Amino acid sequence: MAEEQKITEDRLKKIVEKLYMDMQRGEVPSIVLPTRTKENIQHNTDSNVWTYGDRESVRSFKTVKGAKNLLRMVYTIHFLTNEHLKKNRSSTLRELYYISEGWDLAKFSEQLESDRLIEDIEILTELQRERFHVRPEEDGASIFGPLELREHMRRGDRKIHCQDDVGEAGYPIPFNVDNLEFVSCDAKFVIAIETGGMYARLIENGFDEKFNALLVHLKGQPARSTRRLLKRLNEEMGIPVVVFTDGDPWSYRIYASIAYGAIKSAHLSEYMATPSAKFVGVQPEDIKKYELPSDRLTDQDIKALKSELTDPRFNTPYWRYQLKLQLELNRKAEQQAFAGKGLDYVTNTYLPERLTELGVL
Amino acid sequence: MAEEQKITEDRLKKIVEKLYMDMQRGEVPSIVLPTRTKENIQHNTDSNVWTYGDRESVRSFKTVKGAKNLLRMVYTIHFLTNEHLKKNRSSTLRELYYISEGWDLAKFSEQLESDRLIEDIEILTELQRERFHVRPEEDGASIFGPLELREHMRRGDRKIHCQDDVGEAGYPIPFNVDNLEFVSCDAKFVIAIETGGMYARLIENGFDEKFNALLVHLKGQPARSTRRLLKRLNEEMGIPVVVFTDGDPWSYRIYASIAYGAIKSAHLSEYMATPSAKFVGVQPEDIKKYELPSDRLTDQDIKALKSELTDPRFNTPYWRYQLKLQLELNRKAEQQAFAGKGLDYVTNTYLPERLTELGVL
Repeated sequence: MAEEQKITEDRLKKIVEKLYMDMQRGEVPSIVLPTRTKENIQHNTDSNVWTYGDRESVRSFKTVKGAKNLLRMVYTIHFLTNEHLKKNRSSTLRELYYISEGWDLAKFSEQLESDRLIEDIEILTELQRERFHVRPEEDGASIFGPLELREHMRRGDRKIHCQDDVGEAGYPIPFNVDNLEFVSCDAKFVIAIETGGMYARLIENGFDEKFNALLVHLKGQPARSTRRLLKRLNEEMGIPVVVFTDGDPWSYRIYASIAYGAIKSAHLSEYMATPSAKFVGVQPEDIKKYELPSDRLTDQDIKALKSELTDPRFNTPYWRYQLKLQLELNRKAEQQAFAGKGLDYVTNTYLPERLTELGVL
Repeated sequence: MAEEQKITEDRLKKIVEKLYMDMQRGEVPSIVLPTRTKENIQHNTDSNVWTYGDRESVRSFKTVKGAKNLLRMVYTIHFLTNEHLKKNRSSTLRELYYISEGWDLAKFSEQLESDRLIEDIEILTELQRERFHVRPEEDGASIFGPLELREHMRRGDRKIHCQDDVGEAGYPIPFNVDNLEFVSCDAKFVIAIETGGMYARLIENGFDEKFNALLVHLKGQPARSTRRLLKRLNEEMGIPVVVFTDGDPWSYRIYASIAYGAIKSAHLSEYMATPSAKFVGVQPEDIKKYELPSDRLTDQDIKALKSELTDPRFNTPYWRYQLKLQLELNRKAEQQAFAGKGLDYVTNTYLPERLTELGVL
């Protein structure tokens, strides 16, 4: 940990040194960053995830806006180094915004600015914000299943078995999952689940025990910590990850953010994405095959599906077929719709069938 | 537990028996329920909480709508008795809606109907829905502090210390907190906290250890399980509860729902409300006193404050003063705004001062 902290401190310092050296040389201090737009996202064939491309934008002291921005960066780096790293403290993104109250000219005028600045620092240091102890407001995703881990806490280490040492709600994932060490994992696969209702259903039905599965509750669009945890389980423990969501375009984006990365955090895709993650469903074809209770697509759904047909992440024969089929059927179905066939149907019939098809069982 | 289940089964059966007896006597089957509106909320001086008044509405077979409603109730009671209670299973409110797929005429046309029906059954049985194993979609609130509890799980009992046996995210509150038994509690008081950021701040700053406090993260408007847990801690362990939220009209409602009960669940106020719960802040007067970074009130804020001035739950000298002061100041402040004065200010200065004023420290 001490070595990691040294690296973080050095990289933060390097940003400020660059600005200082510019001034020493009599140049206008500036910083170069990749442009963070959809147009500048490209597939990295080596790592099989989506990252930023070559387009760049420059921040410099040439304009008042640019100068203010760099001034804030220097203040922020000073705070992160002296208050966070040296004292082993942390803050939320919201707190960081308030902390700038005493920074005079460098004060942020809204949280959007401080959030974005933290992203800039992530890109410049090539380190995720957890490394300099900045955390999100809420998390709340959780795990249940045959995994034993050690959590390095401020108050010492805790060894926790995510099936035997936890209550019915499971083990809540902390904001910095790099503080977790996997002690042992007997799971054959990880199943990441969109809704709390389905996560509780699988626990109640003993799915984790029967199929040796590690259940991860995503809580909708998964937080960075959840995606990072899935990536680490896949990479370090060598267990396959499957994703089980509702059958609508918004849920396919949940899958895509796990498998390929999200636009907002494309600079961290290699750190957070799990390209081998497989999509269990609900697939559009399942709506017909399993005669699921379903709803008509809304205009927003149709727009989202059409936008996915032009999204490079969904440009595969499988996804093109499913997305087109859904537009044709004009229906969507939720994962909890399986309850219409009885409380055991999803764990006794649907999931075993789909997991066999995917080669996981 | 077996005895409790017997009571639940008997009360469910009684509803159906009443309908059956009506028919036997040649009468039109009907059921009487209190009207669930703001106008029918009244203060119960015995228990000091807000409950439903005398206004009633009748459901009967006289209309097709009424007949369908009672048919659904009979189907639902059949399901709850045979699938949930006899087999020790549970479902989410969402699943329950889907389960009605096979009920032909009794099928719910939207979840609003099944949710409301479950509330009707709660009122008729005078039991909370957890007793017949119906759970909400998400929960996610959590505890951190000197409390040891035993959770009765489907898979046996678990003894968990909410400070020593959990990670940095704490112990997640399960949906049915009546499955929890308090083994021991060394806490001097419980502090219920609105935001995840402040909950994490108090843990990081060691507030639980220094002040012997049990921290409860509310996650915004608290779930029933969270309110029930606060009530039980207050009543069974005899420890005072204080509430720490943002300083805006929406947050005062969080406090009111904990202390006095919410309109939507007024039939369960005596079971869930903690009338002795005290409001720590952020108080409107704190904005001036502590010179907090603050924002101008929006039109919605002003409307909400004015509505609170006519809400019987806020009709006390204390609240009338604070609400009027806030309208005068035309400012609001978040609890994380204390970060503007340094990361320790809230735990070293603000909370000790306020808790001393409240007589808790």
